[in-house]
Amino acid sequence: METLATLLAAHRAGARTPRETVRETYRRIAAHADPALFITLRPEADLLAEAASLEAAGDTTLALYGIPIAVKDNIDVAGLPTTAACPAFAYLPAADATAVARLKAAGALIVGKTNLDQFATGLVGTRSPYGIPRNAFKADLVPGGSSSGSASAVSAGLVPAALGTDTAGSGRVPAMLQNIVGVKPSLGLVPNTGLVPACRSLDCISVFARTVDDAMAVLDVMAGPDPADAFSRPLPLGRLAALAGAPRLGILPPDQREFFGDADAASAYAAALARFRGLGAELVEFDYTPFAECARLLYEGPWVAERWIVAEALLTSDPEAVHPVTRAITLPGGTASAADAFRAMYRLRELRAKAAPILAGLDALLLPTAPTAYTLAQVLAEPILLNSRNGTYTNFVNLMDLCGAAVPNVIAASGVPYGITLLAPAGRDAEIASLARAFVLAGDLPLGASGEKAPPAPDLPPPGETGRLDLCVFGAHLSGMGLNGEVLELGGRLVAPVTTAPLYRMALLAGGVPRPGVVRVTSGGAALAGEVWSLPYEGIGRLLARIPAPLGLGRVTLDDGREVLGFLAEAAGTEGCPDITAYGGFRAFAASRVAKSA
Amino acid sequence: METLATLLAAHRAGARTPRETVRETYRRIAAHADPALFITLRPEADLLAEAASLEAAGDTTLALYGIPIAVKDNIDVAGLPTTAACPAFAYLPAADATAVARLKAAGALIVGKTNLDQFATGLVGTRSPYGIPRNAFKADLVPGGSSSGSASAVSAGLVPAALGTDTAGSGRVPAMLQNIVGVKPSLGLVPNTGLVPACRSLDCISVFARTVDDAMAVLDVMAGPDPADAFSRPLPLGRLAALAGAPRLGILPPDQREFFGDADAASAYAAALARFRGLGAELVEFDYTPFAECARLLYEGPWVAERWIVAEALLTSDPEAVHPVTRAITLPGGTASAADAFRAMYRLRELRAKAAPILAGLDALLLPTAPTAYTLAQVLAEPILLNSRNGTYTNFVNLMDLCGAAVPNVIAASGVPYGITLLAPAGRDAEIASLARAFVLAGDLPLGASGEKAPPAPDLPPPGETGRLDLCVFGAHLSGMGLNGEVLELGGRLVAPVTTAPLYRMALLAGGVPRPGVVRVTSGGAALAGEVWSLPYEGIGRLLARIPAPLGLGRVTLDDGREVLGFLAEAAGTEGCPDITAYGGFRAFAASRVAKSA
Repeated sequence: METLATLLAAHRAGARTPRETVRETYRRIAAHADPALFITLRPEADLLAEAASLEAAGDTTLALYGIPIAVKDNIDVAGLPTTAACPAFAYLPAADATAVARLKAAGALIVGKTNLDQFATGLVGTRSPYGIPRNAFKADLVPGGSSSGSASAVSAGLVPAALGTDTAGSGRVPAMLQNIVGVKPSLGLVPNTGLVPACRSLDCISVFARTVDDAMAVLDVMAGPDPADAFSRPLPLGRLAALAGAPRLGILPPDQREFFGDADAASAYAAALARFRGLGAELVEFDYTPFAECARLLYEGPWVAERWIVAEALLTSDPEAVHPVTRAITLPGGTASAADAFRAMYRLRELRAKAAPILAGLDALLLPTAPTAYTLAQVLAEPILLNSRNGTYTNFVNLMDLCGAAVPNVIAASGVPYGITLLAPAGRDAEIASLARAFVLAGDLPLGASGEKAPPAPDLPPPGETGRLDLCVFGAHLSGMGLNGEVLELGGRLVAPVTTAPLYRMALLAGGVPRPGVVRVTSGGAALAGEVWSLPYEGIGRLLARIPAPLGLGRVTLDDGREVLGFLAEAAGTEGCPDITAYGGFRAFAASRVAKSA
Repeated sequence: METLATLLAAHRAGARTPRETVRETYRRIAAHADPALFITLRPEADLLAEAASLEAAGDTTLALYGIPIAVKDNIDVAGLPTTAACPAFAYLPAADATAVARLKAAGALIVGKTNLDQFATGLVGTRSPYGIPRNAFKADLVPGGSSSGSASAVSAGLVPAALGTDTAGSGRVPAMLQNIVGVKPSLGLVPNTGLVPACRSLDCISVFARTVDDAMAVLDVMAGPDPADAFSRPLPLGRLAALAGAPRLGILPPDQREFFGDADAASAYAAALARFRGLGAELVEFDYTPFAECARLLYEGPWVAERWIVAEALLTSDPEAVHPVTRAITLPGGTASAADAFRAMYRLRELRAKAAPILAGLDALLLPTAPTAYTLAQVLAEPILLNSRNGTYTNFVNLMDLCGAAVPNVIAASGVPYGITLLAPAGRDAEIASLARAFVLAGDLPLGASGEKAPPAPDLPPPGETGRLDLCVFGAHLSGMGLNGEVLELGGRLVAPVTTAPLYRMALLAGGVPRPGVVRVTSGGAALAGEVWSLPYEGIGRLLARIPAPLGLGRVTLDDGREVLGFLAEAAGTEGCPDITAYGGFRAFAASRVAKSA
């Protein structure tokens, strides 16, 4: 089954052109034939022109070179209407949302704007005047919401990735219901500039994809603060890594598991625990009470006033223009008092204080994504209660400032897909995504609605020890040499002797103590011997304080393709210095000098 | 003049017993003869018994061994009524506030509960049914509030230290008006368990003393999180230190200085700037606009609803039991909407985002504590407007999550005392207290109302190795640009815009986000604009972990000949990239691109 990664590789290798991908995308959209999926689909010719420009520019190193992406229709794409699934609210943005601008700059092709529960209020996908997108995995189920169209587009294989948003669970619940991956970043990691708010203090742009790797590739492009968004934060994203050690995962105690009578859902959760146990995880029951109370705060508390603010003008001037269910949910937000708001914030603070020690002892919480899966018929008959049940395990997450990764778990004999979500405090996005990735790879589910298995996932290195960096040294810092004591004193530990890729030259720098200067070259490079040492962040800073020009620290490519931090010299600082590349490393050079002087 | 430090030394040396101190304290209280100062004064016999117990236990190492302390009457002391200056609200607490319990455990003797502006709403000290405490320094001035009685007790020399609280400036304005020190800690540094809230999300317990050393000794005992207070935080307190280097202080530009026509106040602020210049400080004008707008938010915005919550029962059942001015201020809080509250919080978030880069470049803000000093007669004639002017330079501080130290500056020929306040982001309490201490020691004012000078202050060591490195940035990390937030998050502070020596070229690196690569060349180099930021060692390490090839950190030579750490690119990584040296810097290049695309 095609993924973003395989498509990108094909584009880069020239096995497929972005224009061919565009044509294939529109063929699939036509074949899927769901008139409720896109609110605005761009003309194929426009995308073909963009793809042609990309091909002409020829920068295949772009992180999303020629990748088609769909965007939820509460996120601005310049020149396309933003409707938030409310025609009376629609406007035509002149600028891209920051997240979209970053996708485009990375070579992505925006296919169109997808349907959603109006104003992103809902977890079901049934609350839109543009119709109900078909659940691409199992048509009698609701598609999930509020990011219904984006989830359907990814599950159906129309695009390898799509943007959703997530306030109460809109980036996770549809992922479960359509058997795909939903990554909900930390609040503020991706800027919200150009997003129609649901609850402005709790919103984030999220990513749907068919694999965790694909979702993280998109997130990586969008992450980073934006001066235009006061809610954006400079959080580290980190990198996906292989599972290391025995992660401690918080699980629901049996008497706090709520599946609303769905025995398949209960079995699925038990199966997920067993799979994680098989991966070596330590499972620890925790008290869900503060999280459950927090989940109820989202709709029973004053945060509904944030939703009301967004729709205030319409609700005042033309209430009939708002979907009746959305209106019923949002209107009370206009009457809540500031005192109610502060009281709820006090309670939230207390609940977060109760949750903090629980979270501190765990690598992640492991929860069902949603407690059960409802059919369209069920939800249309009981639109508010069943929607609210869908948020049992998602509503608290943004109030608690956590990040989450929702992934497929089990497809029951009934054909219903069940998912799990891993959650951790903001800033640990890559850590939980790595856990989710390991979980998925240990399973055997098809991707989305395709019925096909994933292509092999690349092996990843284990995560770096927290708070430490690997550093490649080439000269007097090598073990046993003159300045090695400095590395030890700074907390260094030898990781391994290494060899660089054949891209470097080594010069003997001018000045008192013999020191090598390693410079990357575009031709005539050789492989050089070095050592990788692990140092604490602070030790790296202290070391840098002592490094004289023309030396510095940059990225060194090793012979196995990995990139590590390492000592490099400025090219200008090695001009006129003796070239000692032929020795293959500084230790061999130093030995030759000892031999000569002996 | 006696201070907490000299009294403690006398107790420890046996030159004076705690019981003798108790007797002297009550003699002074009687001689001061202000019936409005204490709401509850404990019987002398009770304190003598406590002092006797302390002496019998004999642990003179206790940090506050036998030190008498007065407590504002909105903080619980077990067995004494807590009134918040509202008899109808009063209750008898069974337990001490956490802060009080910590003082007692350190050997302090609690003398009684002091008067305040009712519900800590006010900066004047005139809003209490228990009368108006006399300004011990200058009787025709208001005592300042809301911590009026505590400030009077310290200024009059009745106790060496007293607890206040500070939401809008109640721990700072009275300090100025009575010529003493007021330390307002970071929110959450001292637990609020057992405090009657004013605005629960913005309150803190503060300390009045006659010297900075004394105030910090009390703060040191009270600091540290408390599981019972969800608003308490594990912040570092640090230690007082000698002045080191040239602190960068933010000062008001002349056209943003507001003294409401008080020429003496203007001269006093100018004198403070001169004194700091004499201490080697670098004074930098900053734009006060976002801080001024934030200050207005406190009473014009929804935070008044927090005050209303506290008094709700009384305002509903027996409004006449509330002071008429307090009632007039508090009642609108009951009608504010949750939507108003969220809108104000959005605006606050935006203002904090505007303030962040200003604060990041400075060691502290240096402001007048209050713009002027009003007399009792003036305030009684115009109780709300003049009170509100008192908060011109204090109201924003807790909304912005800053800590502050207010100290005496100048006593004008009129006899009016003027003060200054140093402010910095939460967690830097000891740093700003050290600055304030150096300022006081360079002056020559008497302590409080005593007319006597301070005993010699101990010499302190300079702050420990600063653990910071200067780093020159050239691209997206520049202030206001896309990745600047990353530098701020890593603890960065702007040092100065700089220009390199004419030895470098700048290329536009390939890839998604536009980033420059600076390379040193042996000929054809130019001077490039950058910024030097100071980062903690650890922050440098974390930053390096995120820097992609071909970027790294090395030595950059500036136009003044200095060498600093800075971003450099590998020469090989810039081959084939567009040369943008001619722009002279990345900001000019980026501006040209915006101009083109516009």
